[in-house]
Amino acid sequence: MHRYRSHTCGALSTAQVGEIVRLSGWCHRIRDHGGVLFIDLRDHYGLTQVVVDPDSAAFKDAEKVRAEWVIRIDGKVRLRPEGTENPDLATGAVEVYATELEVLGPSAELPLPVFGDVEYPEETRLRYRFLDLRREKLHRNIMTRGAIIDAMRARMKGQGFFEFQTPILTASSPEGARDFLVPSRLHPGKFYALPQAPQQYKQLIMMSGFDRYFQIAPCFRDEDPRADRLPGEFYQLDLEMSFVEQEDIFAAVEPVITGVFEQFAEGKPVTQKWPRIPYAESLRKYGTDKPDLRNPLVMQNVSDHFRGSGFKVFARMLEVEKNQVWAIPAPGGGSRAFCDRMNSWAQGEGQPGLGYIMWREGGEGAGPLANNIGPERTEAIRAQLGLKAGDAAFFVAGDPDKFVKFAGLARTRVGEELNLVDKDRFELAWIVDFPFYEYSEEEKKIDFSHNPFSMPQGGLDALNTQDPLAIKAFQYDIACNGYEIASGGIRNHRPEAMVKAFEIAGYDAQTVEERFGGMYRAFQYGAPPHGGMAAGVDRIVMLLCGVTNLREISLFPMNQQAIDLLMGAPAEAAPKQLRELHIRPAPQAK
Amino acid sequence: MHRYRSHTCGALSTAQVGEIVRLSGWCHRIRDHGGVLFIDLRDHYGLTQVVVDPDSAAFKDAEKVRAEWVIRIDGKVRLRPEGTENPDLATGAVEVYATELEVLGPSAELPLPVFGDVEYPEETRLRYRFLDLRREKLHRNIMTRGAIIDAMRARMKGQGFFEFQTPILTASSPEGARDFLVPSRLHPGKFYALPQAPQQYKQLIMMSGFDRYFQIAPCFRDEDPRADRLPGEFYQLDLEMSFVEQEDIFAAVEPVITGVFEQFAEGKPVTQKWPRIPYAESLRKYGTDKPDLRNPLVMQNVSDHFRGSGFKVFARMLEVEKNQVWAIPAPGGGSRAFCDRMNSWAQGEGQPGLGYIMWREGGEGAGPLANNIGPERTEAIRAQLGLKAGDAAFFVAGDPDKFVKFAGLARTRVGEELNLVDKDRFELAWIVDFPFYEYSEEEKKIDFSHNPFSMPQGGLDALNTQDPLAIKAFQYDIACNGYEIASGGIRNHRPEAMVKAFEIAGYDAQTVEERFGGMYRAFQYGAPPHGGMAAGVDRIVMLLCGVTNLREISLFPMNQQAIDLLMGAPAEAAPKQLRELHIRPAPQAK
Repeated sequence: MHRYRSHTCGALSTAQVGEIVRLSGWCHRIRDHGGVLFIDLRDHYGLTQVVVDPDSAAFKDAEKVRAEWVIRIDGKVRLRPEGTENPDLATGAVEVYATELEVLGPSAELPLPVFGDVEYPEETRLRYRFLDLRREKLHRNIMTRGAIIDAMRARMKGQGFFEFQTPILTASSPEGARDFLVPSRLHPGKFYALPQAPQQYKQLIMMSGFDRYFQIAPCFRDEDPRADRLPGEFYQLDLEMSFVEQEDIFAAVEPVITGVFEQFAEGKPVTQKWPRIPYAESLRKYGTDKPDLRNPLVMQNVSDHFRGSGFKVFARMLEVEKNQVWAIPAPGGGSRAFCDRMNSWAQGEGQPGLGYIMWREGGEGAGPLANNIGPERTEAIRAQLGLKAGDAAFFVAGDPDKFVKFAGLARTRVGEELNLVDKDRFELAWIVDFPFYEYSEEEKKIDFSHNPFSMPQGGLDALNTQDPLAIKAFQYDIACNGYEIASGGIRNHRPEAMVKAFEIAGYDAQTVEERFGGMYRAFQYGAPPHGGMAAGVDRIVMLLCGVTNLREISLFPMNQQAIDLLMGAPAEAAPKQLRELHIRPAPQAK
Repeated sequence: MHRYRSHTCGALSTAQVGEIVRLSGWCHRIRDHGGVLFIDLRDHYGLTQVVVDPDSAAFKDAEKVRAEWVIRIDGKVRLRPEGTENPDLATGAVEVYATELEVLGPSAELPLPVFGDVEYPEETRLRYRFLDLRREKLHRNIMTRGAIIDAMRARMKGQGFFEFQTPILTASSPEGARDFLVPSRLHPGKFYALPQAPQQYKQLIMMSGFDRYFQIAPCFRDEDPRADRLPGEFYQLDLEMSFVEQEDIFAAVEPVITGVFEQFAEGKPVTQKWPRIPYAESLRKYGTDKPDLRNPLVMQNVSDHFRGSGFKVFARMLEVEKNQVWAIPAPGGGSRAFCDRMNSWAQGEGQPGLGYIMWREGGEGAGPLANNIGPERTEAIRAQLGLKAGDAAFFVAGDPDKFVKFAGLARTRVGEELNLVDKDRFELAWIVDFPFYEYSEEEKKIDFSHNPFSMPQGGLDALNTQDPLAIKAFQYDIACNGYEIASGGIRNHRPEAMVKAFEIAGYDAQTVEERFGGMYRAFQYGAPPHGGMAAGVDRIVMLLCGVTNLREISLFPMNQQAIDLLMGAPAEAAPKQLRELHIRPAPQAK
């Protein structure tokens, strides 16, 4: 017989009754029923009930074992007594009567129980991650994560993509975040950088004559952590294609993502034909470029109804041309209590308040705004928004650039408070036509709004002739349930257009050559049109596992202070190491 | 029609004759045959011959294009004129008569031609890697690399392994090489390390209750580069299993590796049932722990024949107990010219020379050694080695620990010089029973010979009772054609045995806790018996692609000075970056 097991803990059924078997695993739960010990023995594959009574040679040893000890038992499979079967358990029809027991790995008293589902502080969970990972939910999430990545890989290959590995010790990449640096031992004073994304490499792969690249790529950004962003490293499903337009990327990616979502949605509906929402429209309708389309509310511009109206605050605002009034419809929200609650929430968000109109039985509008603008305008607003008695609408006014974010939050809040959001579905959409440039208030200059390597719509011609702030890019995101889960673009593969694009953003040709030397060089020697995308693996897994913190789907994450409590990283280095790397610590001046 | 292509450059055949098609690709080769231009248009998928004559509207543009320009052409598929078909090309029966041509990406004059197979200096190849990668052989090697990794993955899953991603920003790991360090921004004076291997994490995954882990894992070692080791980073097929003995690892791994080799061996034979060669035996027979078993030569201890013989140099050496004389048989090597050549080679290797005996027609031994020891002993040696007329044998003498490496080189040399090595096969073997400890002459103490986390054969008991230098470990390598392609072990999962093992090597319990805190802690809370292995992905790909330099199978490798010539890494960092990371350069004292 095998040294440790003839079967896993998930394998036994009535088919083995009467057989002598050997199992190894962890003591999940130990119960003493009148002198008879019941041990739920657990391994990765399942649980098996082991019984030891005082007649068994294993009894003396069994009395010693405690939760999470690793043991091996030999014994005979038998049917559980009638009425004690557990239909929820694959092995629930049988138990093993143990005749021998060997302790393979004892356990000290547990800082964190594995059995049960009690919340524990993050610090304990991360320090004892090896115990945390034995717990059912996290264990399952990690397995689901792996299965999702497998599914991505299989579907990408199904679309004709090939997987490549790009370097991790590389040069600084211009993704806009902070780089992690790695001091070079052989080249004093010089540093490698860990890739924020394989952006340049994947474009270089296209220029190397490959056609469809993908990678489950580790990426590194030295940013301050937050719940939906792991400190340090994360994975993206990175892809790039040659000889394509935006439409080809969509055609390649949509079935991959839809397919992966459907495979793991556990029956929840997944968008089949993704809407394509221009960036500007998304802001106008949803107040964000990553709308949660499970929320049916669509905001509308209702400025006309307030222009010159008796509600002087809005009327006066609207005298400034760019100002607008937007309405957030609230079907079923037509109660004073709800409108007041929304008003308080808005104040909590730092707003002066949130204007509203309620429509009472009979269709009459009520509330201070309705009173001020009168019944006709109130009715016109109701009609535009398609509301009825028992509904309400909320209003935000001013410069849309400034209020849009708050309007989006208010839309989300209304949707959630009124239970309008169908949580049990995945709503996917392309957000398209991002602006190529934006005006940086901070630097008082035009800068790239997203990826500087994107192709401006209209190409070099647009760069030469149009108002930069009016130029759109062939750049797109995927939004799902309020999260941005992917981002991509058609690349600018013409060096002269690249130089011009950077020039508008205030970088001269020399800077471009210096900062993106390899890629700039490659553009000179026959660059194909190409484009691609990167999807956030961790975020997709998080959505599909139904959790809201990335630590619930990551194997050995760092904590929010970017500390690996399990391994004790970061740590001080030996002086010899620092000498070899030609660096020394420079404590910050106070 | 699609903006860039209706077909790839590998797709057209007689089935499309008469169709109007659109192709995009690189101008691989352009020939002018009496005013008619023939452009071999290339993409990732193949080559298509495009014809443009002066009657075509595309002619004027076609005259401008040069090698490696990216173009789009529209045209009609037609049969090639009889006698001009190219059966070696998938599209060789047809050509496209171009009616329209668009330049998508022009190219400057090439520093490195893509067409043809001329050797170019490494510096040029790496600086213009995007051109180098378009070249047929390298392009194919990179695709083969990806296919091999896919095959590894598929076969590992077929064996019930699950894939995990372990952290890359982590703590220093004790693999014996130098770490790459990453300064922490949030924790002044502290550093992450890039993993030399996911050794501790994979053991922690087993202690987290998972059962069969694998990963195509990036590993990082700051070692001085050499041809069969890439600077910086490399990939290993990393695996670990719980509740296993050495035999289980062999049973899981052997079919994976054999299968992968067979899949890519292009018909070359691959060892089916791997021999298991104890470390000591491997040294004795082959002079190395990574024997090339394609070489049929087996060395033998022939000390007895020289003890007390007339060849005083050896006879005197053999008076010291540990000294021995080994023979390297050389079937077919019985000529003065060959023996002299081997002797010169040995001198080039820093040896005083290489003693030999030749057997002439009639079976008589010749040469100075034979003369000194006389015909009886000479004949006894011939008989022991199973040699015949026309053969020779070479002899190395002294302390085997000291000469073994040279003896191994001499065996290789004889095998190659005499053409005894069948290059067209893959010979795989397990090397087992590595010593657990070795005596470090440098530090004048006992140290781990390989992995400190291995289980000593005999466990804690052996550590307590045996001579440390006599203890073997459950540790094994895979050797293939003279390369070590994998290494693994059964782990020491008992904390008390771990502490004892380190104590013998001179590390106290506190040091163990400090250096391997996470793993040491995990050992306290129910650790299962486990073991695993790591195979060198790059080296396996190198073997299967039939090349001897890792740069021929790597996408964007650094050069031998650990410089990425394409991206310009490492590079100087901005002072602001260094301030944020709390370090400053410390130029080395001269």
